[in-house]
Amino acid sequence: MLKRVISYAHELMETTVNPGETVVDGTCGNGKDTLFLGKLVGQTGHVVGFDIQADAIANTKALLEQEEVKNAHVIHDGHEHVEHYFKKYKVESIGGAIFNLGYLPGSDKSVITTPTTTIQAIDTLVAYLKKGGLIVLVVYHGHPGGDTERDALFNHLSKLEQRQFNVLQYGFINQKNSPPFILAIEKK
Amino acid sequence: MLKRVISYAHELMETTVNPGETVVDGTCGNGKDTLFLGKLVGQTGHVVGFDIQADAIANTKALLEQEEVKNAHVIHDGHEHVEHYFKKYKVESIGGAIFNLGYLPGSDKSVITTPTTTIQAIDTLVAYLKKGGLIVLVVYHGHPGGDTERDALFNHLSKLEQRQFNVLQYGFINQKNSPPFILAIEKK
Repeated sequence: MLKRVISYAHELMETTVNPGETVVDGTCGNGKDTLFLGKLVGQTGHVVGFDIQADAIANTKALLEQEEVKNAHVIHDGHEHVEHYFKKYKVESIGGAIFNLGYLPGSDKSVITTPTTTIQAIDTLVAYLKKGGLIVLVVYHGHPGGDTERDALFNHLSKLEQRQFNVLQYGFINQKNSPPFILAIEKK
Repeated sequence: MLKRVISYAHELMETTVNPGETVVDGTCGNGKDTLFLGKLVGQTGHVVGFDIQADAIANTKALLEQEEVKNAHVIHDGHEHVEHYFKKYKVESIGGAIFNLGYLPGSDKSVITTPTTTIQAIDTLVAYLKKGGLIVLVVYHGHPGGDTERDALFNHLSKLEQRQFNVLQYGFINQKNSPPFILAIEKK
């Protein structure tokens, strides 16, 4: 059966991330991916998670506590500042990263991820990404401003040097309401 | 690791086609997919393969003979006439189908698949496709006329009713020379 977008994003992480690695959740949101990543890297690994919304940080921390996952740094700041925190936590390499681009479900739809900061974060992360590692972007683009971010990302990622990176697009083309799709960056 | 387009097309077939089923190779070409499908459905299954070029038919038959695969009908006709042959061979249902859309590698680049006949074949095949089955199109579009077929397919398949079908796009966006990508139709 063809995998739904979220399942496929998780499968991609599962097949490339190893226990003990550091991984990044670029957009903690409700914390589901932070939790998923925390379990994936296990007690010897770490998650560095970001969100600019206090609600998202609170929800994520609550979920991790409830599930007794203790290996995550949940940071109330924009993902474009990731390098600052990598230095703080002495992160030298990452096993992968996930971003859910758009707005926080169930929250203020005017607070959205934006192309400039998203691309800044990605450009920083690819330098830290291990060979064979993936940065998986789940691109929600049905909200106001979503098409701008989608197009900017497409434009930027389609220019990534093909000798160094593979950039995969995975999505369903016959669904209404602009469903999310995946852009996955693999470091060769 | 992110799967290359051809590997992913085969993986999709492997996860949905069962031994004993009838499957279709819409474009035999050099016979590689006909052979792959023949092995996949085994001695109790059948492949119905099409090509409009005599060279392709000869190459495919030679490859199957060499590999001692004997369960394929290799038909020198266009895939748009598939229903005629289904009646002839009493095919009532198919487990899946593959098309490589474009031109025969190493042959005359002016002989290409065309949107009208391709779409006609697909529309016939979805009626025979089992639930959960896939029609996988590997879309080559870098040759003259390739963009027209790509756009027509996209337009047609994006309108397939989402309650009945999932239509997946899978491809790499940062490669030069218009690499092929996958469009996969899943019957729900």
